[in-house]
Amino acid sequence: MENYIAQNRQRFLDELFALLSIPSVSADPSFSEDVIATADATAEYLRAAGAQNVEVCQTPGYPVVYGEYIVDPNRPTVLVYGHYDVQPADPIALWSSPPFEPEIRTTDIHPEGAIFARGACDDKGQFFMHVKAFEAMVATGNVPCNLKFMIEGEEEVGSANLAGYVKQNHERLACDVILISDTGMVAPGVPSLTTGLRGLSYVEVEVTGPNRDLHSGLYGGAVANPINALTDMIAQLHDDKKRITIPGFYDRVETLTEGERAELAQSPFSLEAYKKALDLVDVAGEAGYSTMERNSIRPTLDVNGIWGGYTGAGAKTVIASTAHAKISMRLVPNQDPKEITELFTQYFLSIAPAGVTVKVTPHHGGQPYVCPTDHPGYRAAVAALSDSFGQKAVPVRSGGSIPIVALFEAELGAKSILMGFGLDSDAIHSPNEHYGVANYFKGIETIPLFYRHFAAEAKA
Amino acid sequence: MENYIAQNRQRFLDELFALLSIPSVSADPSFSEDVIATADATAEYLRAAGAQNVEVCQTPGYPVVYGEYIVDPNRPTVLVYGHYDVQPADPIALWSSPPFEPEIRTTDIHPEGAIFARGACDDKGQFFMHVKAFEAMVATGNVPCNLKFMIEGEEEVGSANLAGYVKQNHERLACDVILISDTGMVAPGVPSLTTGLRGLSYVEVEVTGPNRDLHSGLYGGAVANPINALTDMIAQLHDDKKRITIPGFYDRVETLTEGERAELAQSPFSLEAYKKALDLVDVAGEAGYSTMERNSIRPTLDVNGIWGGYTGAGAKTVIASTAHAKISMRLVPNQDPKEITELFTQYFLSIAPAGVTVKVTPHHGGQPYVCPTDHPGYRAAVAALSDSFGQKAVPVRSGGSIPIVALFEAELGAKSILMGFGLDSDAIHSPNEHYGVANYFKGIETIPLFYRHFAAEAKA
Repeated sequence: MENYIAQNRQRFLDELFALLSIPSVSADPSFSEDVIATADATAEYLRAAGAQNVEVCQTPGYPVVYGEYIVDPNRPTVLVYGHYDVQPADPIALWSSPPFEPEIRTTDIHPEGAIFARGACDDKGQFFMHVKAFEAMVATGNVPCNLKFMIEGEEEVGSANLAGYVKQNHERLACDVILISDTGMVAPGVPSLTTGLRGLSYVEVEVTGPNRDLHSGLYGGAVANPINALTDMIAQLHDDKKRITIPGFYDRVETLTEGERAELAQSPFSLEAYKKALDLVDVAGEAGYSTMERNSIRPTLDVNGIWGGYTGAGAKTVIASTAHAKISMRLVPNQDPKEITELFTQYFLSIAPAGVTVKVTPHHGGQPYVCPTDHPGYRAAVAALSDSFGQKAVPVRSGGSIPIVALFEAELGAKSILMGFGLDSDAIHSPNEHYGVANYFKGIETIPLFYRHFAAEAKA
Repeated sequence: MENYIAQNRQRFLDELFALLSIPSVSADPSFSEDVIATADATAEYLRAAGAQNVEVCQTPGYPVVYGEYIVDPNRPTVLVYGHYDVQPADPIALWSSPPFEPEIRTTDIHPEGAIFARGACDDKGQFFMHVKAFEAMVATGNVPCNLKFMIEGEEEVGSANLAGYVKQNHERLACDVILISDTGMVAPGVPSLTTGLRGLSYVEVEVTGPNRDLHSGLYGGAVANPINALTDMIAQLHDDKKRITIPGFYDRVETLTEGERAELAQSPFSLEAYKKALDLVDVAGEAGYSTMERNSIRPTLDVNGIWGGYTGAGAKTVIASTAHAKISMRLVPNQDPKEITELFTQYFLSIAPAGVTVKVTPHHGGQPYVCPTDHPGYRAAVAALSDSFGQKAVPVRSGGSIPIVALFEAELGAKSILMGFGLDSDAIHSPNEHYGVANYFKGIETIPLFYRHFAAEAKA
């Protein structure tokens, strides 16, 4: 296996470069032919690697690429999920090399070189590790599990059609565990497994006062100003310990044991470096929790946007008729987005001051996700990472949300193992996205170990 | 006098129509020739009426039209102030007739007809009453005071060059009182005198957290969100009785006697009609004061604009790097805009939470103004209005600000008498601005009575 990977090293890079050269920007319709060409290329690489029943499955949006390799119906089955679409490259002027002409350059963090291209890390470079690891396994006659691949093309635009595809393909996608490489490691060289993702409730609020914009001299002080009302209401959503005041908000929040908190605290983290990277004088958040806990195991409420009144240059003495805000809540295990949205709405309407009317419109939501560390898939991943890195993987609770992971659990009854090889500094979604060459090959080497350990776990 | 006005009624209307037909929009440079043509026409009407030393005085912006009529240096002198520029007519589509083609139509409030045109009330119709009243006085040999006219062309864009003109012309503009018709009456047929104007302090604030926009999943709850910080800070600017919390803010606020409050309460005012006109369920404001008091004799603080983060369609999970607001305070007599701006700044910086930096930038300010009701000019105006309306004028404290009135007092040492004939429903600054034909002639009839009473007051 190691030999095969070493002998094909240049080709594995060349093929990834070819995939990265196709601008599969799902958000921009002018790239639609490129997105479809990337689906076709992905299918072709799967076929070449040895996958069976490869199909570019049509959806109302961009297709899902499916392929499988069934060695024995009695063996455990692993479903690999990834996405072949990428974020827009804008602002292109900030790229040091063209985003769809991949090249390798060294950086302080990647002294052995990193591949610079849109999608290098998110997620072409990471899902393609699975294709190449699979190829190596097939070529060396070493496939201990059944494999299924589901590579979608709409992850960067919300995976709108993936739920329908999953619902319609329960049997085809049936599996014991799902394996995903679309996350990162906490620090260079430190193997990491993401054990939790926060859920999301996202609402838009509108506060209306007078039926038209008013002159602030003639009406100021005599009618409720919708912007002042909105700021008052938002201020009431937190207490002075930065706890969220919505009644019932914390009722279902999962409480971690001291042991679990201690394990999370193992993650290498420098508060000074964190503050310096953001030019912050100080961090802020819920009393009684560390920065790492605040953005992972605790639910939050943030205003994502606010607007109202006169926002141009200079001074205009107006009292706006309406004011608006977009507010999102990150949720932790056991909190339900629908219930939280309802609790928010009830409370927000209840604190509206006299003289204004308030409207709350839900946007989208997502369930939180947690992977128990005693799951066979998790144990297999820890073992595989220990083999290849020589150290135990760190469990990481991510503050972000990947709503499809909760969907997979609900529809397919399977947990997802989030084994990523990227780094925070890889600039995903930003100019000069890159992915370490060493990380790419580390992934290709680790993945076959996962299958070996998972087959053993399943047998045990 | 009455005969002269009656005999020349149609010409007085025709001449105002001619003035209204020139689109003297000072805000829009494409109308600059029209603005200057309006200054020239104003000068010509003054000359034709009998004024001496008429001059179109150049300034760095649009000219000030000056004219005078000195009957006897021992008699009292009245300076008439007005403005020949108008607001933009946009949105033009909402006008029922073209804004610069004046026509007379009847309305419920103006059964005798109203002149529909931009500037009909604000301020061409109102300042031209003074020109026509003056003409009638000269023609009938009945000019009891010295008169001076100062008609500017930049009132609708902030009177930026008037201060310089006044400072450079102290002697020329020397007077015993200033007479202005650029305000309104509290109700149709109810003569009114504006005895006070609020001052203004206007600031812009900026709250900065992290040095770039952040993903709310990965950072939410762990860093201070500038929008949440801004809303918290704004909410702290009022207490639960809607009093402003800035230390020292109320220290110099003029306190009215119960008698003065009772007199103000005489003004006809229907809370039901007020709420209905604005589609408000309820009014709101400082505890212990009526709606009329809240927007006239009490200082206020309003957010005029707020913005930050994502304000487009749909949901974006971002924590903004910065958040902004425009905040204005209306001030009452004895409050000083510079001092209040300084108090605001100190307090706002002091309540900034950990993790953000705050910047306060002052925009412009204006001194509050009050005219004592025992001033000879005020008494003359009350007498003139009683003669022509048959009822006593109502004193009105306006919530708005006319910064030049405080400037006149500071530079010329003279009080301004604010004797306006417009109505709130005349739609100044809005489409379908109009001015009652009856109001126009009522003004022309009342103004000569003012001079007669003022000469008598000054002699007494």
